[in-house]
Amino acid sequence: MDRHPQSPRLESCPEGLPRAAYMDPAWHEREMATVFARQWVMAGRAADFPAGRIRRVTLGAAPVIVVRDADGKLAAWHNSCPHRGSELCRAEEEEVGRLIRCPYHAFSFAAADGRLVSTGHAVPSADFDRQAHGLKPVSTREWNGFLFLNLSSEPGHIHADVGLGTLDNWPMDTLVTCHRWEADVACNWKVFWENYSECLHCPGIHPELCDMVPVYSRGIMGPSEALGWTPEEPARPNLRSGARTWTVDGAPCGPEFPGLTDAQRQAGYSFVTLWPSAYVVAHVDHVRSVRILPVGTETTRLVAEWHVPADTMAQPGFDAARLASFARTVLEQDGQAAEMNHRGMRSPAFTAARLMPEEYEIYRFHQWVKAAMEDAA
Amino acid sequence: MDRHPQSPRLESCPEGLPRAAYMDPAWHEREMATVFARQWVMAGRAADFPAGRIRRVTLGAAPVIVVRDADGKLAAWHNSCPHRGSELCRAEEEEVGRLIRCPYHAFSFAAADGRLVSTGHAVPSADFDRQAHGLKPVSTREWNGFLFLNLSSEPGHIHADVGLGTLDNWPMDTLVTCHRWEADVACNWKVFWENYSECLHCPGIHPELCDMVPVYSRGIMGPSEALGWTPEEPARPNLRSGARTWTVDGAPCGPEFPGLTDAQRQAGYSFVTLWPSAYVVAHVDHVRSVRILPVGTETTRLVAEWHVPADTMAQPGFDAARLASFARTVLEQDGQAAEMNHRGMRSPAFTAARLMPEEYEIYRFHQWVKAAMEDAA
Amino acid sequence: MDRHPQSPRLESCPEGLPRAAYMDPAWHEREMATVFARQWVMAGRAADFPAGRIRRVTLGAAPVIVVRDADGKLAAWHNSCPHRGSELCRAEEEEVGRLIRCPYHAFSFAAADGRLVSTGHAVPSADFDRQAHGLKPVSTREWNGFLFLNLSSEPGHIHADVGLGTLDNWPMDTLVTCHRWEADVACNWKVFWENYSECLHCPGIHPELCDMVPVYSRGIMGPSEALGWTPEEPARPNLRSGARTWTVDGAPCGPEFPGLTDAQRQAGYSFVTLWPSAYVVAHVDHVRSVRILPVGTETTRLVAEWHVPADTMAQPGFDAARLASFARTVLEQDGQAAEMNHRGMRSPAFTAARLMPEEYEIYRFHQWVKAAMEDAA
Repeated sequence: MDRHPQSPRLESCPEGLPRAAYMDPAWHEREMATVFARQWVMAGRAADFPAGRIRRVTLGAAPVIVVRDADGKLAAWHNSCPHRGSELCRAEEEEVGRLIRCPYHAFSFAAADGRLVSTGHAVPSADFDRQAHGLKPVSTREWNGFLFLNLSSEPGHIHADVGLGTLDNWPMDTLVTCHRWEADVACNWKVFWENYSECLHCPGIHPELCDMVPVYSRGIMGPSEALGWTPEEPARPNLRSGARTWTVDGAPCGPEFPGLTDAQRQAGYSFVTLWPSAYVVAHVDHVRSVRILPVGTETTRLVAEWHVPADTMAQPGFDAARLASFARTVLEQDGQAAEMNHRGMRSPAFTAARLMPEEYEIYRFHQWVKAAMEDAA
Repeated sequence: MDRHPQSPRLESCPEGLPRAAYMDPAWHEREMATVFARQWVMAGRAADFPAGRIRRVTLGAAPVIVVRDADGKLAAWHNSCPHRGSELCRAEEEEVGRLIRCPYHAFSFAAADGRLVSTGHAVPSADFDRQAHGLKPVSTREWNGFLFLNLSSEPGHIHADVGLGTLDNWPMDTLVTCHRWEADVACNWKVFWENYSECLHCPGIHPELCDMVPVYSRGIMGPSEALGWTPEEPARPNLRSGARTWTVDGAPCGPEFPGLTDAQRQAGYSFVTLWPSAYVVAHVDHVRSVRILPVGTETTRLVAEWHVPADTMAQPGFDAARLASFARTVLEQDGQAAEMNHRGMRSPAFTAARLMPEEYEIYRFHQWVKAAMEDAA
Repeated sequence: MDRHPQSPRLESCPEGLPRAAYMDPAWHEREMATVFARQWVMAGRAADFPAGRIRRVTLGAAPVIVVRDADGKLAAWHNSCPHRGSELCRAEEEEVGRLIRCPYHAFSFAAADGRLVSTGHAVPSADFDRQAHGLKPVSTREWNGFLFLNLSSEPGHIHADVGLGTLDNWPMDTLVTCHRWEADVACNWKVFWENYSECLHCPGIHPELCDMVPVYSRGIMGPSEALGWTPEEPARPNLRSGARTWTVDGAPCGPEFPGLTDAQRQAGYSFVTLWPSAYVVAHVDHVRSVRILPVGTETTRLVAEWHVPADTMAQPGFDAARLASFARTVLEQDGQAAEMNHRGMRSPAFTAARLMPEEYEIYRFHQWVKAAMEDAA
């Protein structure tokens, strides 16, 4: 059987990461100090950080605060005072003016640039260099209305598997968040990503999704993965006949985005994968983001959000939970599958996965993680 | 004071294992990778694994499945799929036909021999050797109706302190399990075995048992441990006058086994110790098995089962909980004593036990554990 | 600005201990094996250990028993039997006569000197040296009615920051304990001590205390810390006008101690700091002790007790909880501040504190801890 050179399928069945990559706290610590300390990590929608508020965010192993000052300027800092290390923000979210004031000893810092403004009642000695004791900065960047944070002092590009312009036809900057779902899953963060990266599990795990996207019921993510596929094969709609989007009945939750191409409408969904922390799925009527946040070696937090035009949300009878229920069912199935996978990996008989040709994305993910762990900061 | 050469008493008071043997997770991990990975571990009664069912069992640190196919053939495998490592059995017990099918990607394996039968929707590349990706086997063996498992590829004999024929006069293969009691005890698994191995604690810990077995109230397990004992001393009944078996009132729970010798009836109980995982006690009317299963460095699961002839169980008014209550009281006392011992061992002032001459079985147990940790697999 | 040579202020802003000192279980273990195993640790009031009782106390990482025999003689021992390591005392407190009897195998020891008196039913062999198997001793010492324990075989002096005679004008030995408050705080034990060692946090954390002690509202512990202070400056009362002691209304809870000097009355409080385990505050009417006991690397138990003359306690209407409420409020505020500090120290951006000149006591504490970790036993 000939295999077409343009197929994404692997030519062989390689081994996956070693068992320690999923279980060993030292390995996890190293990932937090490299992958999650150097790559851009999605923190949610920038518009969901209101002016005059300070909010806690965890970035890998680092507690961070995101501050939007009264002027609307957004910045992020480590949540640890340069004096004695105290938390600067004691609650999940607090009010803030132009100054961030440590609740312990009243050291105060400019919210906009982190500069040390006051040492409270303390009178430092002459050797104390105020310049060197400002807040420790975390880099911020926005993409399509999403806020990304980076702990590195020399951050690179936001990593995405497809062009960062993929969603240019969607009015991303104007969307509002209408629903959020969070869950802690008992697996290593990479196990959830691996599950995301293949559809061999779809027939057994996702009956509703396979009904919505018929090609998934063949265990593949798209026609080009099939043996015997040729590039000449015409593209067909991904969704089942009559369905326009990922809702229970396939009907859009509001007006379709006007700027999409026919191909984008026909596709029914467009994925952007943003290792190590998130993926975004754009449909004709709404957009969904899912963040994959390591909490510990064997615990991962999922944060899924649904984003729609303000007009859609304002429609009488709009039901955000109903919109979310289809993808939420799929996410819950994925979470259970990832937990089942992780539990089985605890077996001393498991040494490494043997990847199938259809698991080319897992293979790429492993290569990327290994490279990201070794790159100098 | 002369000591008779045939007495089992130790000639001196040696030290026990070092404190780390009971506290150090690294030591525990080593034991799981040696003692519990090479020795036969009791998994319960073979007859309690019904045909057409798959059941999860933990063998040291290894999650294992025991499968009895529709034909009644019994086999055991690691509970981890050779593809990506997922659990093969998601629940404590599930139905199974001739195939074990991984719930994640539908890889299927013959229940009888573990052979890879299907890779589901995946189409492996030419380099994939199906022969090398069957289920990873766990050895099985039966003794007197008990199922033993062994993780080693070259398992040796089932270890028993007395001849494996000790219970030949009992109709072991025909007994049925009428009662089960489980408890997690906060001690290292060896602490429970040490407690099992001496009777110096009996007078202080087990008033009911000392009443049932008068020699125990002298702090010894049998007359030969007493100073001044000679082999010429005639054997006397072990149980208190009028008692036939270990029940609250000493009365048998059903007909006595017809094949026992007079000495076996007079003894009142016959112990078989099966390090590292179980012991069996045979009485004139019933048999009891107790499994001692490490859950973690400082947690041990006890599983006690009572086994009787089917006729006994079918008697009108037969009360299995009542039969069990005597030994259950003793086991609960032992569990509390072991926890008290373990807590005290956490003291930095504890470096090792100083064994008494009557603790010869603990000494032998320590020697056995050390040897079992060092033997090549 | 000239700084007076007699001011306790630091001349520079040094770094504090490294982050590992607060987070790393290995560092903590080392502290338990050095600081808490060599220094005197306060165990409470000697009079609160009644005759004929045995009580469990944890000393760093060591479970210990304090025994006062029927004759009133007090002694302390490791709570681990020299035979097999069992706990000697199974409950928080138990009755005891002249013998301490291990509940496991009935080994018995003289409560007064720890001598092995009986091996129960065990008959040791000739090589067993009874002298070498007595209880393992813990040193005891009393100071001002407080019991101190020391695990070292060659204990040194009780460490105090001011002379051990500081409270000589108080009738310390006759005071009785009228109230106890305990809490577990989620911080390393040193974080609580650091918080105790400076008043820069007082304005932000302790409004009631700053109202009671006006100098605290300036962020300093006393006038000599202020820039520009000279030794010629006359001492003024510490407490707000009209207040005599640390109660909500500033009124004493009973008669004032007759033997105090005018300066002691004017001061309003006298602190004695007893690193690593306790501090004592003496007021004109009552005395308070606070013990700071490490439970784990990131958990610390606080035990505060209020001590008064028996006559005060016998007064009609005496309300110990009311007496305690002022300092209890302050302690709760300190506990929350310490937890907030510790959480912020978990940030990977925290490497070490940068101490202010007013934090000279923290600096001294760090030097003391480092020295205490390195001293040979």
